[in-house]
Amino acid sequence: MKVALFGAGRIGKVHAASIKMDPRSELVAVTDVMQEAAEALAQDHGIEARGADDILADTSIDAILIASSTNTHSDLIEAGVKAGKAIFCEKPIDLSLERALQVSATAANHDKPMMMGFNRRFDPNFSALKAALDAGEIGSSELLSVTSYDPAPPPVSYIKVSGGLYRDMMIHDFDMCSFLFGMPTTVTAHGSCLVDPEIGAAGDIDTAVVVLSYADGRIATIRNSRRAPYGYDQRVEVLGSGGALAADNELENTVVKSTSAGVTSAKPVYFFLERYMRAFSIEWSAFVDAVVDGKAVPATIQDGVNALALAEAANRSLAEGRPVEVAPFLSEA
Amino acid sequence: MKVALFGAGRIGKVHAASIKMDPRSELVAVTDVMQEAAEALAQDHGIEARGADDILADTSIDAILIASSTNTHSDLIEAGVKAGKAIFCEKPIDLSLERALQVSATAANHDKPMMMGFNRRFDPNFSALKAALDAGEIGSSELLSVTSYDPAPPPVSYIKVSGGLYRDMMIHDFDMCSFLFGMPTTVTAHGSCLVDPEIGAAGDIDTAVVVLSYADGRIATIRNSRRAPYGYDQRVEVLGSGGALAADNELENTVVKSTSAGVTSAKPVYFFLERYMRAFSIEWSAFVDAVVDGKAVPATIQDGVNALALAEAANRSLAEGRPVEVAPFLSEA
Amino acid sequence: MKVALFGAGRIGKVHAASIKMDPRSELVAVTDVMQEAAEALAQDHGIEARGADDILADTSIDAILIASSTNTHSDLIEAGVKAGKAIFCEKPIDLSLERALQVSATAANHDKPMMMGFNRRFDPNFSALKAALDAGEIGSSELLSVTSYDPAPPPVSYIKVSGGLYRDMMIHDFDMCSFLFGMPTTVTAHGSCLVDPEIGAAGDIDTAVVVLSYADGRIATIRNSRRAPYGYDQRVEVLGSGGALAADNELENTVVKSTSAGVTSAKPVYFFLERYMRAFSIEWSAFVDAVVDGKAVPATIQDGVNALALAEAANRSLAEGRPVEVAPFLSEA
Amino acid sequence: MKVALFGAGRIGKVHAASIKMDPRSELVAVTDVMQEAAEALAQDHGIEARGADDILADTSIDAILIASSTNTHSDLIEAGVKAGKAIFCEKPIDLSLERALQVSATAANHDKPMMMGFNRRFDPNFSALKAALDAGEIGSSELLSVTSYDPAPPPVSYIKVSGGLYRDMMIHDFDMCSFLFGMPTTVTAHGSCLVDPEIGAAGDIDTAVVVLSYADGRIATIRNSRRAPYGYDQRVEVLGSGGALAADNELENTVVKSTSAGVTSAKPVYFFLERYMRAFSIEWSAFVDAVVDGKAVPATIQDGVNALALAEAANRSLAEGRPVEVAPFLSEA
Repeated sequence: MKVALFGAGRIGKVHAASIKMDPRSELVAVTDVMQEAAEALAQDHGIEARGADDILADTSIDAILIASSTNTHSDLIEAGVKAGKAIFCEKPIDLSLERALQVSATAANHDKPMMMGFNRRFDPNFSALKAALDAGEIGSSELLSVTSYDPAPPPVSYIKVSGGLYRDMMIHDFDMCSFLFGMPTTVTAHGSCLVDPEIGAAGDIDTAVVVLSYADGRIATIRNSRRAPYGYDQRVEVLGSGGALAADNELENTVVKSTSAGVTSAKPVYFFLERYMRAFSIEWSAFVDAVVDGKAVPATIQDGVNALALAEAANRSLAEGRPVEVAPFLSEA
Repeated sequence: MKVALFGAGRIGKVHAASIKMDPRSELVAVTDVMQEAAEALAQDHGIEARGADDILADTSIDAILIASSTNTHSDLIEAGVKAGKAIFCEKPIDLSLERALQVSATAANHDKPMMMGFNRRFDPNFSALKAALDAGEIGSSELLSVTSYDPAPPPVSYIKVSGGLYRDMMIHDFDMCSFLFGMPTTVTAHGSCLVDPEIGAAGDIDTAVVVLSYADGRIATIRNSRRAPYGYDQRVEVLGSGGALAADNELENTVVKSTSAGVTSAKPVYFFLERYMRAFSIEWSAFVDAVVDGKAVPATIQDGVNALALAEAANRSLAEGRPVEVAPFLSEA
Repeated sequence: MKVALFGAGRIGKVHAASIKMDPRSELVAVTDVMQEAAEALAQDHGIEARGADDILADTSIDAILIASSTNTHSDLIEAGVKAGKAIFCEKPIDLSLERALQVSATAANHDKPMMMGFNRRFDPNFSALKAALDAGEIGSSELLSVTSYDPAPPPVSYIKVSGGLYRDMMIHDFDMCSFLFGMPTTVTAHGSCLVDPEIGAAGDIDTAVVVLSYADGRIATIRNSRRAPYGYDQRVEVLGSGGALAADNELENTVVKSTSAGVTSAKPVYFFLERYMRAFSIEWSAFVDAVVDGKAVPATIQDGVNALALAEAANRSLAEGRPVEVAPFLSEA
Repeated sequence: MKVALFGAGRIGKVHAASIKMDPRSELVAVTDVMQEAAEALAQDHGIEARGADDILADTSIDAILIASSTNTHSDLIEAGVKAGKAIFCEKPIDLSLERALQVSATAANHDKPMMMGFNRRFDPNFSALKAALDAGEIGSSELLSVTSYDPAPPPVSYIKVSGGLYRDMMIHDFDMCSFLFGMPTTVTAHGSCLVDPEIGAAGDIDTAVVVLSYADGRIATIRNSRRAPYGYDQRVEVLGSGGALAADNELENTVVKSTSAGVTSAKPVYFFLERYMRAFSIEWSAFVDAVVDGKAVPATIQDGVNALALAEAANRSLAEGRPVEVAPFLSEA
């Protein structure tokens, strides 16, 4: 299966490595608006840097992997559909839910696999938790808690174009809730600017708690912060009728030091590249499974739309200071 | 310091043992509407079972410990104030916030120590977390999460007279938030009946998430369930600008068994008597410190009023499906 | 059951508290060569300080608890046997194995319970491990490892009269091995002076590893140090055909602090009084069970002799630099 | 840097993957006595399967990686030295210490890097422990304990040609002790056959405890078992004057399940490929560092000789039932 990569930045490189590690997929071309970045990645992999149109027109290329900037995702998905490619796209589909709904409609009849890059679904800890949940190991689920703190905030320049914390950061946690509990009916959002006043000045928040209410009474809680001085904090807890499941952080190593000052363990691995490197690789193989073996895509474009709808609902809830229904957001377009 | 005990039930016995363990306090009398219970406890401790009025009139008695049923607390506090006794009262002051505010006003000018039995403040884990927080070990605090699950629901007959989950169960967690973060400005309540439909039929919930918002942007989350099959789950987490603090459960023992089925530890200790036995004893000594040494009371009647006000605000929030301001509840009377 | 206490020092006070906590036993008298110590403890408990002979002659006293200095144990056990008392004696029986064997012979026909104070058998962690082992939860046992480090060495003046590390400190670990694995056939001892050269100058070691070999091929390892800067380190591990069991330390509290410097937990509780307070209380109740209910004594005088024999064998092994057979030590007298 | 691989079996494949992952090294040829295995690996990597002599004669090849069966190591090292190649060799050098000493002498004057594959030195947990130890974080070291249990014994057919537990399995732990504590003066070995009587019938043991004594009084303990039903158990503990360091197992995932049956974590990763995959990769990069950048080789042929000498001393100690001096083994040849 021949793959072309759109986007030669940090996440593009991660995906290029994953493509290389799966013997069934071969990276054959890369494109980037930054020509130098494309050339550098091409050289590292012994492939060609080409133009986007050229790639889309090349019928020998089976799949495109969209890892370019967010504002290009929608157009590239549509172009990929038109060109008959299997499509793997980094989240989010778009910062605009309306546009995402359009793209989703376009992709609905696509006869090739179309997968969204919700990498956390493939984290071995979260997928093991999900498997235990699905196997009924704690009976029927009741409460879900997702903790997701970044080690440090991004530059304010990034914050300004990010679409805001709910769309940029909590989108992963919305998807984690959908992954584990399905779609909620109501979103109640809370948020503050406690980490960096410049983030507040840019109109965003850096600290947030969102509660998702489900039709059957289940409740999910998401906690976000742009800063955890001890490293990336990524945990999930579920309480069920028969017990509880918790997925904890991965630590840098297993060494424990005991002195008169206390008993000290290593910190969680620093950020998403360290924590989710294996997840990115497993994720890619799941896409290859879909393309090569016809397996179901484990993170669909509808999942992408759902996560965006929850982010939009959270934005409205925060703005209006009240719980907000989700359903209208999904039929918005 | 001579002490009389009001209430010879389960919690009364716990307190009687704590009184015995502090060499500075002596249990000299007990009373209970169930005369047999009073006699039995009196016999165990080699003391007298007496009438409530008789005890209040006895000037040799320095302090009364109110551990009788909730509906007697308000009257007994007032009687204790009138009789000039130091007063230790189990939470809550009253199921009615209005009545609690009256009692609090009455007690305001009392020149003897008056303390509420918020035992969790004295749990060595939570007090160590509080000490670290106060010492600035994680900088300024931002997010608080309190998890509090009972091992199994009480009988529905109890639920019916309990005042509801927020007043009966979450009241402890409201106080924990006050203890660690002070009083919030807004309460947003969520709740469901997932554990036992009879609890729902009785008009109560058994599963709840409440979010407390603070004037300065801090956010606290409380999760409650009436059922955790693995035992009493009592945890607190705080994220601050410099790190995080977490107080975890105490386990039955430290034994870990590793087999082909997995690595298994002991469960959390079963319920509040096991988990908080030390806390009850430390709590009592703090009251003796106040009476004998004039130290500040570490859990005041105002703390009792505050917790009730948060429970009332949560009730209204749940009923009306919207965030509710706390301030009006505190000036209600 | 009326009890007289011999020895009003630190461990005597611990036992006095345990006697008080079991409603079936009553402390009625105390004696100590330090008259002041006896008077002080007597006053605290509202009892009499009396002479040793007077106590032994008092037929209303059912049991004696020997917590005086080691060099008095043998004589007091013999006197207790003669006086027809139930006897609880702190370890060791004697620093001389020969004398211990005599005393054991004397006590053999005693018709009252006679129990040795091997408190660690009653630690809830070690007894839970033992219960799991006996229940076959890890199949047949193969390897045992006992780690036992004190937080800090005692004064050299104490070392000089202690009988040496194997008899004074490792005696508890020898008993733990007997408790879990029974009696070994061979002892191979290693030891060094690494903590304090004055301990070496006094002819003792402060760091030791001893290997016990069993007739059926099982192997136990004991590690001792007089110094662990992070506190009392008391752990046991067993590998069996079906898995492993490990009993870990108890920590001061469950608080975990995560900062950029790492993830820090509380230290193990500081020393034996903190770690084994519950064990002392459970131990005493087991003795009361034996006296009052006729239950089997869970730590016999033979256990005391066995532990001493292993210590003696270790001394010889260290001196001669070779493995030493245990059997001859048990038939020495 | 061009590399040829000797041995296309399980460990050969692991090394081939490591070579691929380091951009500075390129696998150009493979050889194996099993021609089919060589062809298969060659095909996977798009390289040639060639004859051993052909490879050695090819001056364009910079380094050879010896991952063939143990009985070929010595001859290949000598041939590699003669051919002027940098050499990476899997442990052990040889089952015969005498032969290993010869080879070591031959390699002494080799002007290219020669490294032994003691992969555990590169495990991130053990290397972090070593770094903390070297940085003096626990003061001067006193006691070392190495636990090393395999999940299940190999076939008895393998046992028969393995050289015995000390040379085949504990060799890694001897090297870990050398890595952390240097070379001891005395070895005292204990061993039993508890796992499988056929292993005993084949003249070997499957359960072992070895104590290493150091000139300065430090003591190391190694525990080995051929069977740990819960998976590969690989831990190291060091006690020092200022505290303790412990490196624990890596678990399959971080999920914890709490039910009425207990609190269950994942097992340790199953065996050495899972546990040490990262170590193999880091190890290879260290060799490339030595070849390309002239850095010191972190696991020398002398380390290989040392580990073998300790294994030989352990064999003699077990046979003679006494502590055995190490020095004579190192000057044997």
